[in-house]
Amino acid sequence: MALVVQKYGGTSVGDAERIRAVASHVAKTRAAGNEVVVVVSAMGKFTDDLIKLADQVSPTRPPRELDMLLTAGERISMALVSMALADQGVQSASFTGSQAGIITDTDHTRAKILEMRPERIREAIDAGMVPVVAGFQGVSTDHDITTLGRGGSDVTAVALAAALGADVCEIYTDVTGVYTADPRVVPKAHQLDKISFDEMMEMAATGGRVLMLRSVEFARRHGVPLHVRSSFTWEPGTWIVEEDPTMEEAVVTAITDDTSEAKITVGGVPDKPGIAAKLFRALANEGINVDMIVQNTGANGLTDISFTVALTDLESATDVCEKVKSVIGAASVATDNNIGRVSIVGAGMKSSAGVTALMFETLSNNGINIEMISTSSIRISCVLRADKVGDAVRFLHTAFGLDAN
Amino acid sequence: MALVVQKYGGTSVGDAERIRAVASHVAKTRAAGNEVVVVVSAMGKFTDDLIKLADQVSPTRPPRELDMLLTAGERISMALVSMALADQGVQSASFTGSQAGIITDTDHTRAKILEMRPERIREAIDAGMVPVVAGFQGVSTDHDITTLGRGGSDVTAVALAAALGADVCEIYTDVTGVYTADPRVVPKAHQLDKISFDEMMEMAATGGRVLMLRSVEFARRHGVPLHVRSSFTWEPGTWIVEEDPTMEEAVVTAITDDTSEAKITVGGVPDKPGIAAKLFRALANEGINVDMIVQNTGANGLTDISFTVALTDLESATDVCEKVKSVIGAASVATDNNIGRVSIVGAGMKSSAGVTALMFETLSNNGINIEMISTSSIRISCVLRADKVGDAVRFLHTAFGLDAN
Repeated sequence: MALVVQKYGGTSVGDAERIRAVASHVAKTRAAGNEVVVVVSAMGKFTDDLIKLADQVSPTRPPRELDMLLTAGERISMALVSMALADQGVQSASFTGSQAGIITDTDHTRAKILEMRPERIREAIDAGMVPVVAGFQGVSTDHDITTLGRGGSDVTAVALAAALGADVCEIYTDVTGVYTADPRVVPKAHQLDKISFDEMMEMAATGGRVLMLRSVEFARRHGVPLHVRSSFTWEPGTWIVEEDPTMEEAVVTAITDDTSEAKITVGGVPDKPGIAAKLFRALANEGINVDMIVQNTGANGLTDISFTVALTDLESATDVCEKVKSVIGAASVATDNNIGRVSIVGAGMKSSAGVTALMFETLSNNGINIEMISTSSIRISCVLRADKVGDAVRFLHTAFGLDAN
Repeated sequence: MALVVQKYGGTSVGDAERIRAVASHVAKTRAAGNEVVVVVSAMGKFTDDLIKLADQVSPTRPPRELDMLLTAGERISMALVSMALADQGVQSASFTGSQAGIITDTDHTRAKILEMRPERIREAIDAGMVPVVAGFQGVSTDHDITTLGRGGSDVTAVALAAALGADVCEIYTDVTGVYTADPRVVPKAHQLDKISFDEMMEMAATGGRVLMLRSVEFARRHGVPLHVRSSFTWEPGTWIVEEDPTMEEAVVTAITDDTSEAKITVGGVPDKPGIAAKLFRALANEGINVDMIVQNTGANGLTDISFTVALTDLESATDVCEKVKSVIGAASVATDNNIGRVSIVGAGMKSSAGVTALMFETLSNNGINIEMISTSSIRISCVLRADKVGDAVRFLHTAFGLDAN
């Protein structure tokens, strides 16, 4: 008998019919001899509707109250899923994040889980019930209601799976699994049966839209196998698991793309120790996440520092750079919001030569200019003009032998 | 400095604009030197919408899950009111029923309050904040979320006012106060400045729609003065207070009407001890509330027992009577869903002769037949044909000198 945590996203519980379909699938999973814990997101666009309502009421939206407001969404979907399970003859009870023992810090709207105390969930399982748990939410050490930020429901599911020692955490969504590239960009992309945590993390970090980096990190740290699959077809999807040393690895597993970032170049910076530190400390103090960083040392003791930030942070990041400019003795601050990033990801890259060369040749042979490069042991990313991203992904998908037959 | 509990109903927080108006009024009440605790209902028809959604999902609607679902409503309104208060510069925090320490029994969808532990609310007040508390909800001794049934938000407000020793509990609604009769029925009805708990209870029990009986009972038991007033005009409304022995009382304070009941007559019942007990025990066992009961002893040792029940209970009550008929040796069960009740209520009635006579004469002089009569020390109710109710209320309103000049 396996213990399965099943997480259903917003589209999977989008209306009454979808909710009944979920209940039916849970009943089947139970009938196959498994124990099941369900984690749900808010229905469809309900969270967005609540945010709109908050905007109408209040320009300031205090974070504690925003969290209180938004947690109403999962409360509704979990109660409805639990009702639908009752109609399927499955004993069930819904639990808020607080009731499920998800203890977080006090950082409202993006709280981190400090501790899991899932005693009530464990008791419900032992009593033969299917607990239905609100995703995305917890209770802080100050006894206030918190939310876990974007992708928070996945984090809830993985954290519960880890705390309960579940055999698998199934993430149900509106796609059938993880693909070698975004199928909307690359028609020849195909679904992966299996991918390692490391690869999935690199994909999540570079534009893969199926899972958020944070939940994959959490799953890897706790060794929770993930299974991403569709709540519309109910077919097996993609497993995300520990790397299996006995398997031969594909050199490149997937190509990702991301056009949600912008580039800032701080030019004419004295090439002295501590300059970059001052710049990035100033950005960090404003809560701005910097992604790729490239520094080109030029002649005459001056250097250019380029980095990427989320488009949504571009304005505040530019402000910070303008303020720091005189402090670090830089000559200029230039921004570019017309860039895109293409990345190749593959665990086999570590032990395979020539991957970098093939990537650069493929882009160059097709007239695509590379503006920035960054690498990890299992990923290479290139920044390009935004309008070249689609072509780049398709050419690389073919060049690395990923096209479906 | 007074401590004021302000309860806002669904129409009072029906949209973003109404919510901002509420916040502005709370800010004014604070600025006038009062401490304020706010209790809110769900926005407008949101609770009805949730019930519709539950009906779409599930025919069974397990009560525990229905409670979990419905409590999302106040969660949304309380967070929004708290946000709007922040914009008014008023320090505020919202609290669920559970966080506010409202401990109930485990009777889902109609739980009763067992204990109030409002420590967090008291702390918030002492810290100079305005706590915004979810009405209608609590947490059971089993740590499950419960709701308090119809009119539950008023009960929350009164219970908090009692537990905190508040000076007044203000009930904000879409009418301006309590009237001498329903103004839709009697155009000459006028608003009462003040009414006793006893009178208000009789009114609530006989069709007065402004307050539910339960919250008035609770307020009387704990000596919490109520002030019913409008969140649209913000004018002073009607105070509901302990009877003031120094004041001369009006003989009749108000006329109420109620067409939400039906009559059942069990005929040809042997006039022996224990027969009525068997009948009403059987009804009570099915959870059916019986209102007026009249027994006419006839000739030949047989009697007719007539009583009224809510129209919504008519079918199940009739079933019970048909089952009990043979047990008690009754001849017939007849139902009548075309009745109405008119009541006159007044604390002065106790010490005033001729009230009953004037009521009966007024009805009789206007050709209105009385079918059943029941009385308390401060109320007389008559059951009439439903289509005579409007006329009866208007004639009585004039006869007892209540018409506005």
